[in-house]
Amino acid sequence: MTQPTAALIIIGNEVLSGRTQDANLKFLATRLGELGIPLREVRVIPDVPETIIGTVNEIRVRFTYVFTTGGIGPTHDDITSECVARAFGVPWEVHEPSRAIMEADYARRSPPVTMNPARLRMATLPRGATPILCAETSAPGFAIGNVHVMAGVPRIMRSMFEVVAPTLQGGTPVKSRAVHAHGLLEGTIAEALTAVQNRFPQLDIGSYPYYREGGNGVALVAKGTDEAALEAAAAEIAALIRADGKEPVPGEPAAA
Amino acid sequence: MTQPTAALIIIGNEVLSGRTQDANLKFLATRLGELGIPLREVRVIPDVPETIIGTVNEIRVRFTYVFTTGGIGPTHDDITSECVARAFGVPWEVHEPSRAIMEADYARRSPPVTMNPARLRMATLPRGATPILCAETSAPGFAIGNVHVMAGVPRIMRSMFEVVAPTLQGGTPVKSRAVHAHGLLEGTIAEALTAVQNRFPQLDIGSYPYYREGGNGVALVAKGTDEAALEAAAAEIAALIRADGKEPVPGEPAAA
Repeated sequence: MTQPTAALIIIGNEVLSGRTQDANLKFLATRLGELGIPLREVRVIPDVPETIIGTVNEIRVRFTYVFTTGGIGPTHDDITSECVARAFGVPWEVHEPSRAIMEADYARRSPPVTMNPARLRMATLPRGATPILCAETSAPGFAIGNVHVMAGVPRIMRSMFEVVAPTLQGGTPVKSRAVHAHGLLEGTIAEALTAVQNRFPQLDIGSYPYYREGGNGVALVAKGTDEAALEAAAAEIAALIRADGKEPVPGEPAAA
Repeated sequence: MTQPTAALIIIGNEVLSGRTQDANLKFLATRLGELGIPLREVRVIPDVPETIIGTVNEIRVRFTYVFTTGGIGPTHDDITSECVARAFGVPWEVHEPSRAIMEADYARRSPPVTMNPARLRMATLPRGATPILCAETSAPGFAIGNVHVMAGVPRIMRSMFEVVAPTLQGGTPVKSRAVHAHGLLEGTIAEALTAVQNRFPQLDIGSYPYYREGGNGVALVAKGTDEAALEAAAAEIAALIRADGKEPVPGEPAAA
């Protein structure tokens, strides 16, 4: 079976300027991995229409699923939705059920909030899009084709993703086994580790040095869908750590 | 004067799998902005040779400067350096001065570290590259053409970047003015904010809602190189916040 794949487009000048630390990539990477839909590429792009349209159209033909975060609020710099409509070549028009849901939500607030033209933009979707309505806000994200357009605010993005998740066709979940060793130097075990990687071509074996107050070391991580191979590779990795006189510890190193 | 531009390529399965939270984007975005070299695009890509080669060649012709992070260690998954050599169509060969520096560093350690084939890969550079030697490690990054190849470990990356920074031709630094207001709703001031953006087309005005324990609100941020325009726009933004009965507070909201 071919594994499905995913790409993420993070839209926002605030990430590119360094104002905002993105918090969505790690969450989506982890959740998509659990669903067996490995994240294969991420782009961070500015609030520029031609860039958004071009990137969406380039990426959506290359991956099973595309996710975007950011740019679906009410202000002038929120242009994701209309750009996705242009990418798909469809009109961008008020989605009546979404407008009604937002208006009812606004009327219930104290004090009530007015549905003005800026807020109405949040109920304006590409024709044919399916709204993504989550518990955190009455303003929807949406899916069109294989593209899922979500908010940039992490709390709302996560809620929207969990609405989307059951609609995705997942693959075999990617599992991992980690072994770490304090005091280990990457360069010492690199050649032996290459041999392990070569014996388990179906796995991705990564080597990640860490620098902690409690001492430096290396985390060695095997990833893949074949659990027996993961167990066998982890055992070989533990053996090569012992051969260097260090103690292999299952799992990632604890935070300092 | 045309502003120089920058792009960042983050290379590493560990970021795409969610194992590692990238900490380099925000640092580089901030520092490049200070130098007047706005970061315009970021790609996160896996440790796949064809992807690295293709991305480097696609990106390096579109931006003044390209930076890469990750994949220059001694293990089998560290393939950035040889891929950049292939992208530039030059041999990948031992850089003798870098080898000597590393060997001298290894000999001084207690216990001494051996220069084995895996470690020698870190002294192997594309022909014609200029090493980036920083205070944190004797293993170099390097620059070739407009591409700057740096380590993924944040402490080392930052040190390498500060070695590179004086060699970059900066532009006019991008400045910002932020005003925030507790209790403000984006949708209420969105139309007035659009008018401010339209009066200051030379600025980028962004609206960023925040959700804090001490209360929600919005941060409004104007960015650009024209200081007089920034002052004038910030004053107009403060006025529109007051018109909604809220208190404009200069600067970003304090962390919760």
